[in-house]
Amino acid sequence: MNLKQHIEVMLPAIEKELQSQVARLNADRTRHFHEMLTYHMGWTGEGAGREATGKRIRPLIVLLATASLGADWQTSLPAAAAVELVHNFSLVHDDVQDNSDKRRGRPTVWTKWGVPMAINVGDAMFVIANRAVMDLIKAHPASTVARTATILHDTCLELTCGQYLDMSYEERTDLSLEDYWPMVGGKTSALLSACTHIGALLGNAGETEQEAYRQFGYHLGLAFQVQDDILGIWGDETVTGKSTASDLVEGKNSLPVLYALGRQGKFADRWKQGPITANEVKAVAAQLEDEGGRSYAEELSEKETQTALKYLSESNPRGAAGEAMLELANMLLKRNQ
Amino acid sequence: MNLKQHIEVMLPAIEKELQSQVARLNADRTRHFHEMLTYHMGWTGEGAGREATGKRIRPLIVLLATASLGADWQTSLPAAAAVELVHNFSLVHDDVQDNSDKRRGRPTVWTKWGVPMAINVGDAMFVIANRAVMDLIKAHPASTVARTATILHDTCLELTCGQYLDMSYEERTDLSLEDYWPMVGGKTSALLSACTHIGALLGNAGETEQEAYRQFGYHLGLAFQVQDDILGIWGDETVTGKSTASDLVEGKNSLPVLYALGRQGKFADRWKQGPITANEVKAVAAQLEDEGGRSYAEELSEKETQTALKYLSESNPRGAAGEAMLELANMLLKRNQ
Repeated sequence: MNLKQHIEVMLPAIEKELQSQVARLNADRTRHFHEMLTYHMGWTGEGAGREATGKRIRPLIVLLATASLGADWQTSLPAAAAVELVHNFSLVHDDVQDNSDKRRGRPTVWTKWGVPMAINVGDAMFVIANRAVMDLIKAHPASTVARTATILHDTCLELTCGQYLDMSYEERTDLSLEDYWPMVGGKTSALLSACTHIGALLGNAGETEQEAYRQFGYHLGLAFQVQDDILGIWGDETVTGKSTASDLVEGKNSLPVLYALGRQGKFADRWKQGPITANEVKAVAAQLEDEGGRSYAEELSEKETQTALKYLSESNPRGAAGEAMLELANMLLKRNQ
Repeated sequence: MNLKQHIEVMLPAIEKELQSQVARLNADRTRHFHEMLTYHMGWTGEGAGREATGKRIRPLIVLLATASLGADWQTSLPAAAAVELVHNFSLVHDDVQDNSDKRRGRPTVWTKWGVPMAINVGDAMFVIANRAVMDLIKAHPASTVARTATILHDTCLELTCGQYLDMSYEERTDLSLEDYWPMVGGKTSALLSACTHIGALLGNAGETEQEAYRQFGYHLGLAFQVQDDILGIWGDETVTGKSTASDLVEGKNSLPVLYALGRQGKFADRWKQGPITANEVKAVAAQLEDEGGRSYAEELSEKETQTALKYLSESNPRGAAGEAMLELANMLLKRNQ
C-alpha cells in the first residue's frame, strides 16, 4: 500500500472517530452547540466537505507511526482524534485572537456565533480532545494512557507558549532570528512531534525509537513552517491558494523577515515604519530577497529537512506504512515542487 | 482538628502545589505570560493577597474527602490543584464572555492584557490543570490517574455545556423552571461533584462510597447555587459584599426569576420588556417575592440541602476530617445565618 492507499483506508476511520468524539455534545439541549463544532470541523453548514475539513495530516501521522512499528493503527484512533481536535481547538481560538473572518474559505466560528460562543466552542473541543485520549484504555495499559496524556498536555503547554510569543511579538520592534525558533517550535513543531511520539509510543516503540520518532516530527514541523514562510512571501499563488506576499502585508514575523530585521538594512527600516501596503509588496519582497532573507530561509529549510529525514531513517519505520510515512514527509517537505 | 485547623494546614499546601504547577510557565521567554497567571491566581500584582485568591473551597473539598476516608490527603494535592485551576480557567474565559471588568475587586485579565491574551491565559491554565492530574502518578496507580482524568474531563464538558446554556439563554424570552437545572448542574454542581468524587476515589473509596460522595458534591452545588441566587436578589449587602438585587439589574436567569417567568404574571411582563433599572429594582424584587419566587427558591434550597446532607451521611466520612467536611458543608449551605 502506498500513501494514497493508506489515506483511503485511514481517513474514513479518522473522520468516524472524530465524529463519535464530538458527538459527546449531541444531546437535546446542546444540539446547537454541537452544530458549532461540527461546522468548524467541516462536516455541516455552508461549504461543508473535504475542502472544509482540512487534510487531517496530524492524525494520519499518528496512525502511520503506529502502523510503521507493525502495530494495529486502529488502537491509536482515539489519540489521532485527540491531536486533530487540539489542532482545531487552537484554530478556533486563533481566529478570535487574530480577528480572522475566514478559515478554509468559510466564515469563522466567531463571525457566525460571536466571540463568547467561539471561546466556549474552542474550550469544548479541547476538553473532547483530552477526553478522547482516555478512550485508549480500551486497548492499551493505563500507564500508556497516562503517558500519552502527559505528552499531549506538555505539547499543549508549548502551544500556548508559542501563541503567547507570537502575540507578544506584535508589539515589538526589536525582534531578531533568535526569537523565531521558540515561537515556531511551540506553534507548529510541538504538535507534530507529539503526533510521531504518541504514534510510536502506542506502537510499543522503545524509548530510543520513541525519541527518534519525536525528533522526526519536531524537525518536520520546523522544515514545514520555514517552507510555509517562504511560500507566504514568494510562493506561486496558483499553488498556495493564497495571494502571494500576503504574509508581508499581514506583518507576520516569518523567518525571512526576522533574518532581515537582524541585519538592520533597508528592509528593516521599512518594516519598522508600519504596515506594508499591497502596492509596495513586490518591491519589499524583492528588497527582502536582495538582503538574503530568502536564501537564508531556503538554507534553513533544507537543513531542517535533512535533519527530519535523518531522524526518520533512525526511526526505522517498517513495511508499507513506513514507506507511506516517508512519502508523506516528502510530500510535506517538497510541496511546491 | 476542626475545620479551621484543617484549613490552616491544608491551605498553604494547596497554594504551594498551585504555585509549583503554574511555575511550568516560568521560563525566561514566558516570564510575562507566567505573571498573567500568577496575577489572576491572586499571588502577584496590585491587590494580591488572600482577598484576591478566593477561598479555595474546591481543592479543600478534594483534600477533606480523601482525608475523611482515612487516606493521606497530601497524595491528592495535584488533583486539588487541578480542580482549582479548572475553576480559574473558567473564570478567566467567563470574564471575557461576560465583559466583566472586575473579579474579586481587581481588574480582570482581559482588561489588563486584552482579549487575545486572556483567552490564551485561560487556555494555559486549563492545560496546567490537566497536566497536574498526571502528577498523581507519583503516589497512585496509573489506572487511578486515568480514572481521575476521565472524571475531570467529563466534568469540564459539563462546564462548557452549562456555559453554552447560560449564554444561549440571554437571547431567549421563553425560559422557564426546567431550563434552570441543566444550566446550574453544568456551571456549578459538576465541578463540586468532581471534587468530592475525585477526593473519594483517591482515598480508595469503593464504587458505592464514591457515588455517595459524588452525589453529596452535586447537591451541595445545587443548594449553594440556589442560595446564591436568593442572596443576589434579597441578600444583605453587608454580608454578600455585592450590591443587593444586582442580579436583577444584570438580567441573570436565576431560579426565582425562572420560576416567576413560568407563572407569566406581572413580573414576567416587566422582565420581558428589557433591563431592570437601579431605580425600580426594589419594587421588582418585591413583585417577584409576591409571586412566590423567593419562597419557591428557599424551598428548593432546603430540599437540595437535605439531599446533600443525606448523601454526606451515606458517604460516612470518618474522623476529624469527616467532621470538618460536615462543618464546611454547613458553612456553605447556611452562609447568611
